[in-house]
Amino acid sequence: MSIQAAIDTLTAKGIDIDTNPPSVKSKSRDFFWYSPVLKDRLDHVVADFVATPKSEAEVIDILRICHAEDVPVTTRGAGTGNYGQAMPLAGGCILHLGKMTAVKDIAPGRVICEPGILLKDLDAACKADSGQELRMFSSTWATATIGGFIAGGSGGVGSVRWGGLRDVGNILRLRVVTMEAEPRVMEITGDDIHRVAHAYGTNGIITEIEMPLAPAYDWVGIFLSFKDFEEALRYSYDLAACDGLLIKLATIFEAPIAKDYFQRVAPHVAEDDAVVALMVAPHAMPGWETFTAAYSGAKTIYVQGQTDWPRQPGHVFEYGWNHTTLRALKVDPSITYLQIAYGADDPIALIGKVKERLSPEVLQHVEVTRSGGRVTMSGLTLVKFTSEERLDEIIAMHEEMGAINFNPHRYTLEEGGRQTVDDRQLAFKREADPKGLLNPGKMITWDDPDWSYDSMYAWPGLQPKTAAE
Amino acid sequence: MSIQAAIDTLTAKGIDIDTNPPSVKSKSRDFFWYSPVLKDRLDHVVADFVATPKSEAEVIDILRICHAEDVPVTTRGAGTGNYGQAMPLAGGCILHLGKMTAVKDIAPGRVICEPGILLKDLDAACKADSGQELRMFSSTWATATIGGFIAGGSGGVGSVRWGGLRDVGNILRLRVVTMEAEPRVMEITGDDIHRVAHAYGTNGIITEIEMPLAPAYDWVGIFLSFKDFEEALRYSYDLAACDGLLIKLATIFEAPIAKDYFQRVAPHVAEDDAVVALMVAPHAMPGWETFTAAYSGAKTIYVQGQTDWPRQPGHVFEYGWNHTTLRALKVDPSITYLQIAYGADDPIALIGKVKERLSPEVLQHVEVTRSGGRVTMSGLTLVKFTSEERLDEIIAMHEEMGAINFNPHRYTLEEGGRQTVDDRQLAFKREADPKGLLNPGKMITWDDPDWSYDSMYAWPGLQPKTAAE
Ligand SMILES: Cc1cc2nc3c(=O)[nH]c(=O)nc-3n(C[C@H](O)[C@H](O)[C@H](O)COP(=O)(O)OP(=O)(O)OC[C@H]3O[C@@H](n4cnc5c(N)ncnc54)[C@H](O)[C@@H]3O)c2cc1C
Ligand SMILES: Cc1cc2nc3c(=O)[nH]c(=O)nc-3n(C[C@H](O)[C@H](O)[C@H](O)COP(=O)(O)OP(=O)(O)OC[C@H]3O[C@@H](n4cnc5c(N)ncnc54)[C@H](O)[C@@H]3O)c2cc1C
Repeated sequence: MSIQAAIDTLTAKGIDIDTNPPSVKSKSRDFFWYSPVLKDRLDHVVADFVATPKSEAEVIDILRICHAEDVPVTTRGAGTGNYGQAMPLAGGCILHLGKMTAVKDIAPGRVICEPGILLKDLDAACKADSGQELRMFSSTWATATIGGFIAGGSGGVGSVRWGGLRDVGNILRLRVVTMEAEPRVMEITGDDIHRVAHAYGTNGIITEIEMPLAPAYDWVGIFLSFKDFEEALRYSYDLAACDGLLIKLATIFEAPIAKDYFQRVAPHVAEDDAVVALMVAPHAMPGWETFTAAYSGAKTIYVQGQTDWPRQPGHVFEYGWNHTTLRALKVDPSITYLQIAYGADDPIALIGKVKERLSPEVLQHVEVTRSGGRVTMSGLTLVKFTSEERLDEIIAMHEEMGAINFNPHRYTLEEGGRQTVDDRQLAFKREADPKGLLNPGKMITWDDPDWSYDSMYAWPGLQPKTAAE
Repeated sequence: MSIQAAIDTLTAKGIDIDTNPPSVKSKSRDFFWYSPVLKDRLDHVVADFVATPKSEAEVIDILRICHAEDVPVTTRGAGTGNYGQAMPLAGGCILHLGKMTAVKDIAPGRVICEPGILLKDLDAACKADSGQELRMFSSTWATATIGGFIAGGSGGVGSVRWGGLRDVGNILRLRVVTMEAEPRVMEITGDDIHRVAHAYGTNGIITEIEMPLAPAYDWVGIFLSFKDFEEALRYSYDLAACDGLLIKLATIFEAPIAKDYFQRVAPHVAEDDAVVALMVAPHAMPGWETFTAAYSGAKTIYVQGQTDWPRQPGHVFEYGWNHTTLRALKVDPSITYLQIAYGADDPIALIGKVKERLSPEVLQHVEVTRSGGRVTMSGLTLVKFTSEERLDEIIAMHEEMGAINFNPHRYTLEEGGRQTVDDRQLAFKREADPKGLLNPGKMITWDDPDWSYDSMYAWPGLQPKTAAE
């Protein structure tokens, strides 16, 4: 590999190259530090340079040149991923897409854009054009890119209505550039979308995206408190099951999450209050009131635009999804989290069982979503971290009770998923990245097809700690 | 009761009154003749006159005057109901709302309108204003009113996504005029909506309606054929369970319904083909193609805008819901139908059981809907009518197998429902129609609270057959 040769050729082509150590360092990091495990493994990781293309043509130049010089390329949207997805384990080039932000076309039900636009800017453009918005967004709406959401995220605010990003219909088309001697540009639709969505940029660079849209509403943020956690779960589940009541978020927090970690909510709740956060469409408010009246334990403490708290809480969705973890971490740095699927069959009972066994070391933060036409629940569970061993033990207890774990303390696709490779992703990597230069170290099966998964995978190619310091 | 005094006073007030026998006769009828049972009982029923108000103020005048003169008032939208809902069992006044068609306000997610506007005109207004449309409509979209849909219908095209009209959030507000010495005007929201929605106008006249809206799309009509009926059911069920694929209709027809009754579809299917009719959002088409490719038995025979049939089939939804019955009736006048709920737990197995036992005397026409956050199936089942006894037997067999019957061969609210009164509707009738003059004979519990339901209810006040002839 010749880093310098790549830099020189790229610079000669007029491509924006950054080699300034502090800025390269900062663009080599994401929110991996949510995990003490990843923090230990990846803190030292750093790229050699950052390339910032302004167009697909420049992306192609960068890939061609890096391919020729055997330079690894790790793509970066905004670097808000939590598993080190955007971290260059072997150094090399950070391909930063922050300048590819064009919105190309908006039509009823769809938008075509470049990958580097922030979710909030994309929503603003769609709303201004025709009163539309994305069906779902990561709670990092204000800071994350649509490309990073598709390549590194799974769903979020809106998934309570529309399901997850991987559900058929929630991504319409991706345009992808391969990492070859002569990079190809491919239009990917239908089932093939699974090849590159949520693949961490290991098998192609997304340069254009077509997403479905929903109508934009001035969603009403709401907080309720419940003395009984199970009633809070039941309330949220039943609300999400109302096909005629349009909501965009239903999140449940076990006590004392709200009291301890949500500064602006804390004055309005007690230590033993479970809290529910909602986003409700304005025209669903009368129905929501009707619905809520039937739950004797539901106490509405905040309705955006109606309740006058001395300090407004801001966007309600910035309490849910992985923002819950962020708020907890800020107060107690020893907090980390898990990603748990409780399924659709009897999630409330399963959550009760887990809580019974593990609270308060483990506190329930539950997101209500839809999947396969049913209401489901997932946990972005808060965990008081003591040791890696204990964390693994806690995860094992979840699996034992029948809850499914998507481990956020691992940097590989397989370990963050169900410990098997997605064959379509692997096959497409063979085709699109024959030299294995795209985000290396993130797909175990590429490097070690016989890996057994009995312990955490440690990619042999990872920069040694000393080398980078 | 003094009919003539009422007519005179109304005429003096400048209200449009029609006493011309053929036109009064035609405005006294609806689509009750779908049922041979109702045809026998109600064919002779006729009002004394028709009053056509232009405003809520005129509605109030009509109700005040008819109340004073003890004249029964039966409201009429467009008279497309199937159970004689709009038929004046005791004669009197038909309150025809066909001139109250104003659209008063359209905002994101909602519309306010008068009751007499046709569903299709309301959709056109919402689309022109802001690219919106009703969440759901009766398949009589081209001919029925929104008021009649709410007071006499249950759901339809769009219910596969949004559930039924009775589900919370699917009607936002109703403005209702009571039948009293001095009629009152009431604004009804929330749970109280159930008092007057689907009450056949027995307890108040709806003069203004606020409905939620969804984005308008140029829905793509599709027909598929399947050799295996069960696969057709499974395909449709699974499609409706895709939260990310926006569809508005999923209807399944057992063979040989399409071959025998759908003239323009018939040339493209065989006698043994089950057929599925769909409406898919344009931006869901790539996802729909992906989804469909996984069903080896699914043969796409028509895609609106792509397939060039010598004779175009028209609106695909005009093959579904109760239009299926209409098409069958036109070919074979001995056909009638049932309304069956197969539920959400295992509807496909239950439908299989019913089909096994009753086909071909009974042919399955199944609508996929959502209810309580789950995919459900209902039958608007075709029945080859032989006698009332046999029809009752067939219904009993359905109930015995666990399928729920909503009998369309009855003219009362209770018998068309679950044979119990809706207490809220009865209570509201006591309040809003103390003399019992609104659409008399349609609420058993008003007249005979101890009715046992062992046989068909025959309202004692029904016009005698001879009297009207
Ligand atoms: C507080 C907080 C809350 C969060 N909430 C959510 C949530 O609700 N839902 C959710 O799914 N995630 C959530 N996340 C994770 C993350 O923020 C989201 O997935 C986010 O959308 C990532 O966008 P990004 O632009 O920061 O991507 P990055 O972190 O820059 O990249 C993510 C991955 O995608 C790859 N990538 C980026 N752009 C491209 C491209 N154009 N082509 C190919 N590969 C590319 C990167 O290489 C990387 O592997 C949260 C994280 C934090 C810190
Ligand atoms: C071919 C066919 C297909 C159909 N498909 C469907 C379907 O998909 N879904 C469905 O739900 N139904 C269906 N129906 C039944 C019927 O067409 C619908 O319910 C329709 O919306 C009724 O509207 P309308 O204006 O014709 O009402 P009408 O038949 O005139 O009235 C229906 C009832 O509402 C009362 N009413 C009308 N207006 C008011 C008012 N303003 N205030 C108080 N009471 C009032 C009437 O008194 C009557 O009891 C179908 C019928 C046919 C013939």
